[in-house]
Amino acid sequence: MIWLFVSAAQIRDGRLTIDGPKGRHLARVRRVRPGEAGVAISDGQEHVFSVVSVEGSTVRARLTESRPNRTELGHDLVLLQAVLPSADFDAVLEAGTEVGVTRFVPLQAERSVARPHADRRDRWRAVVEAAAEQSHRGRIPEVTAPMSLPEALRGIAGTPLVVLDPLAAQRLQPMDGSVALAVGPEGGWTGDELAALVEAGGQPFTLGPRILRARLAPVAAAVILSAR
Amino acid sequence: MIWLFVSAAQIRDGRLTIDGPKGRHLARVRRVRPGEAGVAISDGQEHVFSVVSVEGSTVRARLTESRPNRTELGHDLVLLQAVLPSADFDAVLEAGTEVGVTRFVPLQAERSVARPHADRRDRWRAVVEAAAEQSHRGRIPEVTAPMSLPEALRGIAGTPLVVLDPLAAQRLQPMDGSVALAVGPEGGWTGDELAALVEAGGQPFTLGPRILRARLAPVAAAVILSAR
Repeated sequence: MIWLFVSAAQIRDGRLTIDGPKGRHLARVRRVRPGEAGVAISDGQEHVFSVVSVEGSTVRARLTESRPNRTELGHDLVLLQAVLPSADFDAVLEAGTEVGVTRFVPLQAERSVARPHADRRDRWRAVVEAAAEQSHRGRIPEVTAPMSLPEALRGIAGTPLVVLDPLAAQRLQPMDGSVALAVGPEGGWTGDELAALVEAGGQPFTLGPRILRARLAPVAAAVILSAR
Repeated sequence: MIWLFVSAAQIRDGRLTIDGPKGRHLARVRRVRPGEAGVAISDGQEHVFSVVSVEGSTVRARLTESRPNRTELGHDLVLLQAVLPSADFDAVLEAGTEVGVTRFVPLQAERSVARPHADRRDRWRAVVEAAAEQSHRGRIPEVTAPMSLPEALRGIAGTPLVVLDPLAAQRLQPMDGSVALAVGPEGGWTGDELAALVEAGGQPFTLGPRILRARLAPVAAAVILSAR
């Protein structure tokens, strides 16, 4: 099934028009045909549609039903993720989107080897939007610009903070309600960073005795946190 | 830290000898040096060692402590996984090993597009052993030959069976004790397969309303099942 995010302006009088890159992709790559069904998400509403015509890169469809989206977690799951080598960071964005992360905050941690350029954010957003469509999300998770840990901590003030730390005594368990999750780089947090996280109210948790790669740890933690 | 699986024959009189491909890898790729510490796993025991010499592809070490391994789940987590395209299946083996899967059973499901050759098993075993060393497992998970669903179900008779099914009513939750987990291919289980799984005592569970890619679903499920 087609699942895509559209702007409110693309919908008028029960009709949906998809052009530009998304129209081209549907028409040329996915080769959609009249009669095919899909869901267009706009402002948290699911608009079920049936394709009426495909001309060039423009797909026109008729809306058959509108209903509130129900695939979102219902609370915030903010991932403060230390930047990682590009392929790993993309993998975290992709899988994190699938499991429901609502906001990604790339952290320039002390032991982050990668130093992403500001224009990397465009790529990150494209990765997240594609994953949000594939996983049938009800909104596109936000990706902020890379920032320092103190800046990130100011941005989540008031939200319960879970800190992944392999040396923590407590095992991470499912939680209810909004939560921020802080995950370090391949080399882990420095002592100063851990102190700042705890100072900001963060509670350290472990994922157990096995060593998870940097690309898997945040995903496993997000899965556990959203398992209720 | 070096972490590797050795045979009992490599340990004698408090000394450990690593040669062959693993010795070559340690000496030439990881460039270990005398004084470096590591853990050699044999028969569920962790032998802590200190490297004494590196000559050619042979690494010799002195054992400093032996203790029972504690990084295993303590129960079986058997993953009956429909075969997937190669890169996806390797990703499942790798991440599944990190989160504690004890046995991988590749299933030739009706909608499995991939048809792995029997010699694929050697590669799967290599992927799993490497992941087991990286994640500090206490044993190398078993990888069986690909088999049919009826054959796989006979092999897990008596073990509680969790079946991933996006249409199931119940959300998967952490469980105690040994469990088998059955996960279908990209296109999902057929009606006949689902019926056979339920007939064998399988209980269908969903991972929630979002669509997880075939390479992520089994990992997310294994994370939840082993979260206690």
